[in-house]
Amino acid sequence: MPQDDAPNAHQPWRASIITLFPEMFPGPLEVSLVGQALRSGRWSLETVPLREFGDGRHRQVDDTPAGGGAGMVLRADIVAAAVDHACQKGAADGLPRIYLSPRGEPLTQDIVKELAAGPGALMLAGRFEGVDERVLEARNFREISIGDYVLSGGELAAMVLIDACVRLLPGVLGAADSLEHESFENGLLEYPQFTRPREWEGRPIPEILLSGDHARIEDWRRKEAERLTRERRPDLLSSKRPKK
Amino acid sequence: MPQDDAPNAHQPWRASIITLFPEMFPGPLEVSLVGQALRSGRWSLETVPLREFGDGRHRQVDDTPAGGGAGMVLRADIVAAAVDHACQKGAADGLPRIYLSPRGEPLTQDIVKELAAGPGALMLAGRFEGVDERVLEARNFREISIGDYVLSGGELAAMVLIDACVRLLPGVLGAADSLEHESFENGLLEYPQFTRPREWEGRPIPEILLSGDHARIEDWRRKEAERLTRERRPDLLSSKRPKK
Repeated sequence: MPQDDAPNAHQPWRASIITLFPEMFPGPLEVSLVGQALRSGRWSLETVPLREFGDGRHRQVDDTPAGGGAGMVLRADIVAAAVDHACQKGAADGLPRIYLSPRGEPLTQDIVKELAAGPGALMLAGRFEGVDERVLEARNFREISIGDYVLSGGELAAMVLIDACVRLLPGVLGAADSLEHESFENGLLEYPQFTRPREWEGRPIPEILLSGDHARIEDWRRKEAERLTRERRPDLLSSKRPKK
Repeated sequence: MPQDDAPNAHQPWRASIITLFPEMFPGPLEVSLVGQALRSGRWSLETVPLREFGDGRHRQVDDTPAGGGAGMVLRADIVAAAVDHACQKGAADGLPRIYLSPRGEPLTQDIVKELAAGPGALMLAGRFEGVDERVLEARNFREISIGDYVLSGGELAAMVLIDACVRLLPGVLGAADSLEHESFENGLLEYPQFTRPREWEGRPIPEILLSGDHARIEDWRRKEAERLTRERRPDLLSSKRPKK
């Protein structure tokens, strides 16, 4: 059964971003592996300049918060016009809609995998005090946060989300197995890495890593990953790994 | 008592980034409020091109992981040379050193405030499988993660950290009080925002916000912030706010 939404070799993963600053894109996403994947058509990038949907001679996109308070709020009607345009005339038709905001559910590698396995994402990058709540509900936005801090806008958060997804698309990373041992893949942080020189500033590489005994090396790495996770992120252990 | 490390109107907040992709910078940081603050000298940006410290004709910066496995690891001696250069010849002297990595302590708004109040940050953006652990110890890097997901490199994470810090520098945001009600400022997510039009697609702005009764509006906003936080991020309530 053909699935229209499933990505395949002929369909790029589609990133659409509604933003007041389209000139920020592709920016860092033009460089390195993710940039190569963009040029090779593995993913596509569309910016939807919010300003073009603004009102009047000044193309106003925001207004003061109902109930008072500092700052400005992006208007529901303006944002909706941009969303509807992106879905009817642009490349965002059928894409999950994501509003990047510190109020959202925390982005995890599991969400990244879910999005990377889909057709792409339509992202709304907020500015100012936020977005009128009604358009988030009416246009079915999923609110996602890249972390517990506040940015000057959602554009960098959208870039983070795109980068995390694109590197998981088949063929983007060189060696497929370099995804296997990274942080979060088994609910643990990654073990410490070492490389030549064998001794540096009086600090040797741990003997065991030079032993050639692969079983002992695997064992050491697993224990180090568990130790690091216990020390730095006990929350990962309690939420993902029941104690034995 | 004069404090040499304290930022003041005459000293820009200094961002130094050790990276294989200096061409990514300033990129999105050139735009909007953070870009204006860069041009006005409120903060400074220096990239330290890691490749220039590489070895041999090919300027090699990495090598295979000790103990085997996929990918490549950035060499301790190369990274140390870049750090030492940045501190002796560059602008990074006296800056806290941060290695951006998913293994690090999670970035929070409290850490952002701490860094924004300091002289700046020297950031190491990793690539490949990571960095030789010895240089992180020997050069006293603090390992920080912007979230529980994996990026193709640390450059976007460094931009996120810089953006979050720079917007907190005095004078960067227009209205100082627009920092007051944002997410995490009181351990809560921000309440929903609304603006004109008063009714949109059959959805009205909540009556109370149009009442002009500031005490009731404040009360409604506090309850909405608590409700949102309870629904989406109960972890914030349990860690920051003892139950009454």
